[in-house]
Amino acid sequence: MKTLFNTLPLLIPMLLAACSQADLRATGDLGVVIEREQGSAQIVNTSKPAMLSRIEGLGDLSHASVVFSRDQRYAYVFGRDGGLSKVDLLQDKLAKRIIQAGNSIGGAISQDGKVIAVSNYTPGGVKLFDADTLEQLAEIPALYGEDNKLSKVVGLVDAPGQRFVCSLFEGNQIWLIDAKNPRQPQVQKFQNIGKQPYDALLTPDGHFYAAGLFGEKGLALLDLWQPEQGVKHILQDYGKDDAQTPVYKMPHLEGWTVAGNWLLVPAIGRHEVLVVDTRDWSLARRIPLAGQPVFVMARPDGRQAWVNFAFPDNQTVQVIDIKDFQVVKTLQPGKAVLHMEFSPRGEAVWLAVRDEDRVMVYDTETLAETARLPAQKPSGIFFSNRANQLGL
Amino acid sequence: MKTLFNTLPLLIPMLLAACSQADLRATGDLGVVIEREQGSAQIVNTSKPAMLSRIEGLGDLSHASVVFSRDQRYAYVFGRDGGLSKVDLLQDKLAKRIIQAGNSIGGAISQDGKVIAVSNYTPGGVKLFDADTLEQLAEIPALYGEDNKLSKVVGLVDAPGQRFVCSLFEGNQIWLIDAKNPRQPQVQKFQNIGKQPYDALLTPDGHFYAAGLFGEKGLALLDLWQPEQGVKHILQDYGKDDAQTPVYKMPHLEGWTVAGNWLLVPAIGRHEVLVVDTRDWSLARRIPLAGQPVFVMARPDGRQAWVNFAFPDNQTVQVIDIKDFQVVKTLQPGKAVLHMEFSPRGEAVWLAVRDEDRVMVYDTETLAETARLPAQKPSGIFFSNRANQLGL
Repeated sequence: MKTLFNTLPLLIPMLLAACSQADLRATGDLGVVIEREQGSAQIVNTSKPAMLSRIEGLGDLSHASVVFSRDQRYAYVFGRDGGLSKVDLLQDKLAKRIIQAGNSIGGAISQDGKVIAVSNYTPGGVKLFDADTLEQLAEIPALYGEDNKLSKVVGLVDAPGQRFVCSLFEGNQIWLIDAKNPRQPQVQKFQNIGKQPYDALLTPDGHFYAAGLFGEKGLALLDLWQPEQGVKHILQDYGKDDAQTPVYKMPHLEGWTVAGNWLLVPAIGRHEVLVVDTRDWSLARRIPLAGQPVFVMARPDGRQAWVNFAFPDNQTVQVIDIKDFQVVKTLQPGKAVLHMEFSPRGEAVWLAVRDEDRVMVYDTETLAETARLPAQKPSGIFFSNRANQLGL
Repeated sequence: MKTLFNTLPLLIPMLLAACSQADLRATGDLGVVIEREQGSAQIVNTSKPAMLSRIEGLGDLSHASVVFSRDQRYAYVFGRDGGLSKVDLLQDKLAKRIIQAGNSIGGAISQDGKVIAVSNYTPGGVKLFDADTLEQLAEIPALYGEDNKLSKVVGLVDAPGQRFVCSLFEGNQIWLIDAKNPRQPQVQKFQNIGKQPYDALLTPDGHFYAAGLFGEKGLALLDLWQPEQGVKHILQDYGKDDAQTPVYKMPHLEGWTVAGNWLLVPAIGRHEVLVVDTRDWSLARRIPLAGQPVFVMARPDGRQAWVNFAFPDNQTVQVIDIKDFQVVKTLQPGKAVLHMEFSPRGEAVWLAVRDEDRVMVYDTETLAETARLPAQKPSGIFFSNRANQLGL
């Protein structure tokens, strides 16, 4: 006992030093890798690169998407089962998890980081939550038509001015939601914007909201700088040739990308990417590719776009040089490349290669592999710098 | 003694919990406020908003600039006295400080975050340092002409591809520095680019490097996507009318900004901002303002530009709506508004109001003041999301 007591003055500083070191982690170079099949997510560091920990019990992560808190400490994971999970990137643990709906398709975080919005299929609508406590602040049922049916809600994004924008699939509407008072959100509704909007994107500058249409050709475009002008119909020739094409073959618009003045769009059912001039929303050119593109993602500086493909070509990734719109490299990372994410300043890109159970890292200038990390059926990769981006 | 021993099982967990909480700080919403006169810097949190700590002993902070480590844990402060200080944002302390030259003008951090570059007046040149240890990796003397004089180096920025770009004031050159091997950097030199480049900017996409000329009118423009095309001379009419205007009246190009396709430039010696179309580098229009603009800064979404002014109008700030290039608000925050910094997603802007000894925060949509923080003669504000940006 004397011995133990003598060690006390040493013991306590040692403990303090130890825990102090253990806890010191910055959050600027962190990320989350979704492992869909087992409902887990890895917390990763993009500087090393390395896996830091695995968080389990996140539910059904099909089509899972992730946004980050303003301070980049927390990742909010939106699951298909209506689950909303708040993951603590500093303590490697699930901070909180709620089931907020029966079937959910995605979410967003407000410009000031204080409000989380989730878009639901059942019950159709949008719910707002306190980003800190996950307390529900408001529910906005997606009512449409004379008999007040509920519509599936898709294409939810945050927009400048503490707003959210979303689309009603059955309702054929785009809603502009002002969440300055998140307990009493104000909704501006745009009716008859086109048949069955199924997904949407916001340009990175928060200026234009474009919804893809399943029920007809073309896109619905809303200028958020001049919403009073209403929704326009653009790219009349864009869409699927066969009206019977099932929706799961439709490319998701988060797979679209803006590089400089160019919007790059996967051509539906074709082996090409369409290049749209965002100055007049005209089709500028078509780039032939190795398969049906799924995600077309621009390097942060807009000089390159990386493209992955639908089965049976999903072992291939192609790199387009935006300077002359030529394919400069065709890579074969492995079976089922499902997702890609660039490092904040674009020197590296991470690929989720599901059927090889690994994440691969490439140098975007040499186009050579620089690292690979084990992951269990990785399906999505999201880095914490998304906290600083609009329209996600 | 018995009592103390009984408390041990309680004491240790309490200590662990306490220090654990104390150390847990994310770095996504941090920033640094430069207090020039006393050579100190505040570490601030932009979510609260609040001052977290003050770091002293940073030397001469005239024209001080700041870049952030890739993980956003460290701020690198470049002082006029050649000092390079590494501030730990998690532990609120000066992690390391070196004097690397006699007279320095600014610095940058490489795309991968591993190399710090500093541009020096005396001795004229660029030095590269290990971002972790601050060990010097390379020195690049700014030699020019037949008798190998040393030139002042200005307008140093990072560029994609692990490169840096800078200009030689007396040398009339632009240098493109490949730092892939930072101990043996490769320098591509562009000669006779115009008389006396005094500052420069890189477009946010890393595509164009533009150097302002003190010795003649116009700008020197280098297309980093096609450097083989050499340096072009643009905006022939831009510059000072009086060749004798001293350099300290020349607007610094970090005061220039790109919003969408538009480059906004302070007109030298005039009460207006010039709007340049970056698609062809032609002068699109002039916006009349309340004084001689110093900093013209675009909100991250490019919808607004905020402008501060030179004495005697430096108590005024004007807000331009980029939609129609009209001044929508004239603010009077206080005496000597020296600098402005937007929050990462642009919902707020911070103003350094030197002669009022305060920092003021404004909501960028309502244009109303939302907070003010005490600061001792604040002269510059830098937020940690700069870690994710190119060309700083």
